[in-house]
Amino acid sequence: MTAASPNGPTGTVGPHSDLTDVFELAQQLRIDSVRASTSAGSGHPTSSMSAADLMAVLLARHLHYDWQRPDDPGNDHLIFSKGHASPLLYAMFKAAGVVSEEELLTGYRRAGSRLEGHPTPVLPWVDVATGSLGQGLPYGIGVALSGRKLEHAPYRVWVLCGDSEMTEGSIWEALDKAGRYGLDNLTAIVDVNRLGQRGPTELGWDLEAYANRVEAFGCTALTVEGHDVAAVDKAFEYASHTGHPTVILARTIKGRGFSEVEDAEGWHGKPLPPDMAERAIGELGGVRHLTVRGPGPRPYQAPPRPAPQPVRLPQFEPGEKVATRSAYGKALAAMGAHPEVVALDAEVGNSTHAEEFAAAYPGRYVQSFIAEQQMLATAVGLSVRGWRPYAATFAAFLTRAHDFIRMAAISRARLALCGSHCGVEIGADGPSQMGLEDIAMMRAVHNSTVFYPSDATTTASLTATMADLEGISYLRTTRGAYPVLYPPQETFPVGGSKTPRSGADDQVTLIGAGVTLHECLAAADTLAADGIHARVIDLYSVKPIDADTLATAAEQTGALVVAEDHHPEGGIGEAVLHALADRATIPRFAHLAVRDMPASGTPAELLDTAGISRTHITAAARRLLGG
Amino acid sequence: MTAASPNGPTGTVGPHSDLTDVFELAQQLRIDSVRASTSAGSGHPTSSMSAADLMAVLLARHLHYDWQRPDDPGNDHLIFSKGHASPLLYAMFKAAGVVSEEELLTGYRRAGSRLEGHPTPVLPWVDVATGSLGQGLPYGIGVALSGRKLEHAPYRVWVLCGDSEMTEGSIWEALDKAGRYGLDNLTAIVDVNRLGQRGPTELGWDLEAYANRVEAFGCTALTVEGHDVAAVDKAFEYASHTGHPTVILARTIKGRGFSEVEDAEGWHGKPLPPDMAERAIGELGGVRHLTVRGPGPRPYQAPPRPAPQPVRLPQFEPGEKVATRSAYGKALAAMGAHPEVVALDAEVGNSTHAEEFAAAYPGRYVQSFIAEQQMLATAVGLSVRGWRPYAATFAAFLTRAHDFIRMAAISRARLALCGSHCGVEIGADGPSQMGLEDIAMMRAVHNSTVFYPSDATTTASLTATMADLEGISYLRTTRGAYPVLYPPQETFPVGGSKTPRSGADDQVTLIGAGVTLHECLAAADTLAADGIHARVIDLYSVKPIDADTLATAAEQTGALVVAEDHHPEGGIGEAVLHALADRATIPRFAHLAVRDMPASGTPAELLDTAGISRTHITAAARRLLGG
Repeated sequence: MTAASPNGPTGTVGPHSDLTDVFELAQQLRIDSVRASTSAGSGHPTSSMSAADLMAVLLARHLHYDWQRPDDPGNDHLIFSKGHASPLLYAMFKAAGVVSEEELLTGYRRAGSRLEGHPTPVLPWVDVATGSLGQGLPYGIGVALSGRKLEHAPYRVWVLCGDSEMTEGSIWEALDKAGRYGLDNLTAIVDVNRLGQRGPTELGWDLEAYANRVEAFGCTALTVEGHDVAAVDKAFEYASHTGHPTVILARTIKGRGFSEVEDAEGWHGKPLPPDMAERAIGELGGVRHLTVRGPGPRPYQAPPRPAPQPVRLPQFEPGEKVATRSAYGKALAAMGAHPEVVALDAEVGNSTHAEEFAAAYPGRYVQSFIAEQQMLATAVGLSVRGWRPYAATFAAFLTRAHDFIRMAAISRARLALCGSHCGVEIGADGPSQMGLEDIAMMRAVHNSTVFYPSDATTTASLTATMADLEGISYLRTTRGAYPVLYPPQETFPVGGSKTPRSGADDQVTLIGAGVTLHECLAAADTLAADGIHARVIDLYSVKPIDADTLATAAEQTGALVVAEDHHPEGGIGEAVLHALADRATIPRFAHLAVRDMPASGTPAELLDTAGISRTHITAAARRLLGG
Repeated sequence: MTAASPNGPTGTVGPHSDLTDVFELAQQLRIDSVRASTSAGSGHPTSSMSAADLMAVLLARHLHYDWQRPDDPGNDHLIFSKGHASPLLYAMFKAAGVVSEEELLTGYRRAGSRLEGHPTPVLPWVDVATGSLGQGLPYGIGVALSGRKLEHAPYRVWVLCGDSEMTEGSIWEALDKAGRYGLDNLTAIVDVNRLGQRGPTELGWDLEAYANRVEAFGCTALTVEGHDVAAVDKAFEYASHTGHPTVILARTIKGRGFSEVEDAEGWHGKPLPPDMAERAIGELGGVRHLTVRGPGPRPYQAPPRPAPQPVRLPQFEPGEKVATRSAYGKALAAMGAHPEVVALDAEVGNSTHAEEFAAAYPGRYVQSFIAEQQMLATAVGLSVRGWRPYAATFAAFLTRAHDFIRMAAISRARLALCGSHCGVEIGADGPSQMGLEDIAMMRAVHNSTVFYPSDATTTASLTATMADLEGISYLRTTRGAYPVLYPPQETFPVGGSKTPRSGADDQVTLIGAGVTLHECLAAADTLAADGIHARVIDLYSVKPIDADTLATAAEQTGALVVAEDHHPEGGIGEAVLHALADRATIPRFAHLAVRDMPASGTPAELLDTAGISRTHITAAARRLLGG
């Protein structure tokens, strides 16, 4: 570091710098955190100040990274699980020379800026969106798993956690998996500053309690004074060689460096007013202009991924009875020919049929056991490294990971999700196992695609399609076996539909997907026997939806019956109405959905009790026609 | 126990029976589990057989319960967190004399029966629905918390867990809180049978690994051979006197008692075929007809709850700017006058304003720290004991507990939930903190009520209303302060709406709630200045919805603009379409919602960028009118 210039110290800090210079860098990170948040009028300076020494040591001496080439496969990965410490992260980017002082001070939290309130991957140095606590570490597991088990790459994954988020169960799902998968390339750093949003955290500064938990979950725990840069430096060095995933528990002080807010309650998420900011900068030794040149990327030449083999999707004979969940498993196994496809399970692979992939590609099958949140998070982490993850569980249990799915959309992750055992069709197991809210959940995810195939051919085709989609795609599968409707060569464009029954004089349109499509077909047969011509639409693409075909049907038949094995809200019925709302006068409309709490029974009994069976569809059509 | 009758042994087993008789009871539970599942053709006999000794000992000697009076406040509580072991639970009910052999053998998993595939509270001896793993123990925390801290009742809470579910983070949220709250009236029994649904569990029979985790989380761990009834008996006795929440880790064998399936893979969730069932019954010593008379309820006279005091809801002056989240906090504190109201926080009480309740009623305020799943589960457990829980966090973070909310509906729980910081209106914090999916999620919950107030008066009134509602009710609050619209005496019926602007010659209807209602009002002013008469509907009750008023507006004005601070799917726009679908010809319709991924900015900037501001509403109205 050079001597102080009139505008404050300048110079470069790097792996060989004296630790006093690293401390100067830490002070700069604090000052820039204060400046950024004060200029924005919002943000979390005190949560940034507690972790500044930790991050200064990491940035200068341990984070192997080429800031000009964020995609270098030898780069380490840094995830701020405590995403609200974004001022600190952005101050690090400024020190690394990739964000200017102007951008930091005029962009942070402003409209149009990439320096959002919580980090998102609109910044090239950010892997995943954080800000919902307890998620960054789970994502880190996925990134570390890729490095250790799939890529055999030398990078390390560093995750900065807050202490408040250690009460989230997802943190313990993550550490359990870190131990289970043997992720010795993962270092979690917990900034134990003792104060959460509204007061003291549950465990305060009881580092031993944290350490016991960490060790019990199969990771190595190190405790350190988080403002002692030499101790922190040693801990980071040591953590890289424990041979285990390691959690550094750093005792820190919130607001460290500015006596007016140090260890004080009432300062979470509050920028310092300008006069206090000035005093803070003074107490911290004044504005600095240090630049970091940390260790570059680890030497690594990513081997070319093997060329994709031809995908031979399973073929099914029309009329043959096949469960769509079974077709998913077979198609997923076929998709393994793409070397970037990875399949994830949450201990129900024999039910979702995902385990057919495991038999063919055991090295690319990730068992999460019963931990749906971590399954999703691992998938997001794998997506960061370019894999195409397919994750499956019961549709009902995907709700367990809703917050992760929501955040995955903000992370711009590419995920293929499959939810099996949808609706009352599952029968005897009862409502706890029935996905009856999943379409609503998945449609409302930003930029999602929602498929609901009615037969095995459709399922196989859409399973393949999902590999090419951006964002979060979702495939809803059914427990029972129903006849194959389409020949193997049929295509199923995204946003399309099928019209297995139609004629020039159709009087009513029956719309279904999954099991209700089969019920619609049976209802159409019954109606036909009475001389009533019913069109049938197979709405395999729920989002995007085939508005043209629906509008045409509305116009031509003047009466629509939608039947869905889902609660009435947010499902297919509302998707149809939404599609028609600004395109056509909505005709006579009947919406059959699961309105009462189901219980156990046979699939046929439950479809009938729920009012979505062929009998009810037939009756609804007759009612609309005034019969 | 009397000697064997021609139809097998009969007699009564109770606290003073010889342990050999308790073992006979265990064999009966196994046999009845086999018989029930074989007769139904589905179910989980092997998962029941592993825990039969544990449950026989509990039922005969430790579970204080009056089977004729399930509401006796001195009754213990038994929760099957491994809900798939329902054959065992129902066999226990049969042994207790409250379910007949006929009901067990002809009802289990059948349509119309209360013996559903997984237990639900349609049975009077079942507190909560289980079947989504990792939930029963969290609910038990709520029930135990009520007994220990709120009721000061002597009952104990016994939770039977599976080993597979120990990988769910929610289990660790639960044990953390058990320790934190000092719930020495809680005994969790983990049936460590080593085999999950698809093969070995993560930790197998490593009881020490489990014990280390349990102890690290602040509970006492006991390990026991789960088929040694004497050892189990001692463990249960000991567990009641450790002075801590205790977890009994029982080493068991899946399918125990029938050599053909013992410790064998491939038998999860499969009933024995009739010939195997016959051999199993033979190997288990034949059908028994034992009756249990276990320990009766613990002596306890519940003190009368204090009489409700008059609720003095906060009053707000029209025009005054008040955030609805602030009004929620004030109204919640006022509702504390009802002695059964309890408030729950997940460490954001200063943001949701729930902490205003804490100041007034600290004894009825439950701090969950950052653990939304456990917050919900505690609320469900409190609801079991007759409390009226109000639980609040950011709307975005309620998605973390989606599976618990879904299951709470199956539990027929009465919960008032509040989600704050909805939509892009929050501004600078960015999308991770914005609730943009919560209306879709909450509408799709069975039997839910969804409120979205636009001002403080509405919020206060609906906060009070929630105390009287069945099922899950939800109140969506806004971060920023907006003018009070209604005087204190205004009423807000469930399923109603307000029409703050209307006239005989209205040409268009603007529909909003929360911040967009204020934008609609501003748009109406702008339109009025141009001579366009706009009706404005305040849709404070999103579910149920005021279909009459909407249909009248559709008919009278012929043009609807819906603006919502939510993703387009499953929100207010679709709720309006759904309400109109079978009642009116849907008129010209414009739906303004958050379609692109938001970033940071001021609330006004973000509303405008999202296309839901007054400017966009005005423009949409003009477009519909051909302007």
